[in-house]
Amino acid sequence: MRDEVGRWVRAAAPASVSNVCCGFDLLGFAVAGWQDVVEARSSPRPGVRLLEVTGDGGRLPRTVDENTAGVAVLKLLELIGRDGGEAPGVELRLRKGLPLASGLGSSGASAVAALVATNEALGIGADPERLLTAAMEGERVACGTAHPDNVAPSLHGGLLLVRPGETPALTELPVPAGLTCVLLHPPSAVATEAARAVLPVEVPLSTLTAQAGNLAALVTGLFRGDDRLISGALVDLVAEPVRASMTPGFEAVRSAALAAGALGAGLSGSGPTVFAWTREPDWAARIGEAMRDALERDTGLQGDLLISPVGAPGARVVAHGEPS
Amino acid sequence: MRDEVGRWVRAAAPASVSNVCCGFDLLGFAVAGWQDVVEARSSPRPGVRLLEVTGDGGRLPRTVDENTAGVAVLKLLELIGRDGGEAPGVELRLRKGLPLASGLGSSGASAVAALVATNEALGIGADPERLLTAAMEGERVACGTAHPDNVAPSLHGGLLLVRPGETPALTELPVPAGLTCVLLHPPSAVATEAARAVLPVEVPLSTLTAQAGNLAALVTGLFRGDDRLISGALVDLVAEPVRASMTPGFEAVRSAALAAGALGAGLSGSGPTVFAWTREPDWAARIGEAMRDALERDTGLQGDLLISPVGAPGARVVAHGEPS
Repeated sequence: MRDEVGRWVRAAAPASVSNVCCGFDLLGFAVAGWQDVVEARSSPRPGVRLLEVTGDGGRLPRTVDENTAGVAVLKLLELIGRDGGEAPGVELRLRKGLPLASGLGSSGASAVAALVATNEALGIGADPERLLTAAMEGERVACGTAHPDNVAPSLHGGLLLVRPGETPALTELPVPAGLTCVLLHPPSAVATEAARAVLPVEVPLSTLTAQAGNLAALVTGLFRGDDRLISGALVDLVAEPVRASMTPGFEAVRSAALAAGALGAGLSGSGPTVFAWTREPDWAARIGEAMRDALERDTGLQGDLLISPVGAPGARVVAHGEPS
Repeated sequence: MRDEVGRWVRAAAPASVSNVCCGFDLLGFAVAGWQDVVEARSSPRPGVRLLEVTGDGGRLPRTVDENTAGVAVLKLLELIGRDGGEAPGVELRLRKGLPLASGLGSSGASAVAALVATNEALGIGADPERLLTAAMEGERVACGTAHPDNVAPSLHGGLLLVRPGETPALTELPVPAGLTCVLLHPPSAVATEAARAVLPVEVPLSTLTAQAGNLAALVTGLFRGDDRLISGALVDLVAEPVRASMTPGFEAVRSAALAAGALGAGLSGSGPTVFAWTREPDWAARIGEAMRDALERDTGLQGDLLISPVGAPGARVVAHGEPS
């Protein structure tokens, strides 16, 4: 067996919405329907090889140590002490389903899918904490910072409070029945690194109090299923004011979502995707149409819509291929 | 009846712990056992008269418009449109039970007790929102800012999320079974105005994220009754670092509480009172002794202890006197 490549294992990792207004740098949730897929198989040759990348229009690096999926898997092998040129190695094929620089956790989903596929293909059995650490290393290459707020929900699923730290502390938050996310992805891009560069280094103490108070109210609203609390708390006083202008049509789209009955709306990640929440799954299509129409009226751009429960399942192995 | 004074109505308002570590400027809870008492009766003479103040060692202003209880009642009469020299007026007697500048919401308790007594004595029937607005006016006179985080829990009782605003938004938080507060009040004083003056005007963005994340974890821990979450979140990265030195022995007392098994400990309000939390009511006496011993070892000072459930009942009418 050591002389042969193993069977392909295919894993999928979902898109994720990070920040979530007052949850800037602290909240993230997985969505269902948009995802990245990675196939992995063991190889008698040590090391990590990225055989193929499709669906990215040729824009992603093909070099293992520059590609977020490759870097994440290299880190995993390092964490389990298998980075010393020891066999088996792993071969990867990345099928991008998510648009780049979209605010949908695209780089994170690639890293997570690669890790879950590799973990299974090589029978590593790494625990979720290790996978998260490795995925964050992928984010460092893709975005300049090893931020966990996309990879954590893409890996675990659900709606998560992700507190920073060397090992981030993850706390799953309750999702009230029916809570639904509408995503509008416009055909534009916001580079995560550029979006971080516009953030203030310091904020007024009163901003801290207001933002923390809103986050506490949002968490309370989630536990109680209290729409009024949730809605009033879905405000971002920190990132959105300086990032909104990087997303053409943002104010129009956000206003349209609220006018159509959404509980709240904001930038997904650092944009340009805009998310809205509603407790009424039946309203989601109408809210989405209103957002799409507003984008087109305001900018002439056509956006893609996704409707998903808030806090969809995380990454998983979706298929085992035939033995080669 | 209009020519006679009415019966004395006696109301009590409890001490309150505001801030609560990561809940800086956002959380407050009432405690049972330490309180201020105000007696009020209607008078055929319009206006507000402060007949007597006892228990303060002569340190509080006796002039109605300089005393927090008097100012709060003046504001209440203004809010109900009875400030134009219209009868009946009200006569007040303030019985201070709480030490001044103690971090126990002493000024707030006086204002709240005066309002509850006056509301009853004059049959005003003002709703809690009006009473809160009036009480905040008392805080403005006593502390320089109309902050709501002591008067709200002293009035309503419980453990409250108090978000700032012209009309503060109050949200009652759940208190896990057994959650008990230990208070150590040393014989020293910290003026609220001075404690506000040392606060930073701006904070690093990373501090905002860390503090808000801890508050979100604390709220989650309260809903879930999760001691580990509560304990890890009881940290203040904003006020305590700059205020700790204003309270002699603070670090020693805090460390002693934690060593004795407390979930967390911090300054009550802006100090000098220190609070600690435990889920084990049976441990409270031991934690309190450890805190008192640490204070004495570190400073030579003798402190007073109080043990109370977290989130005791709020202000109430405790007695109606005989008709005069």
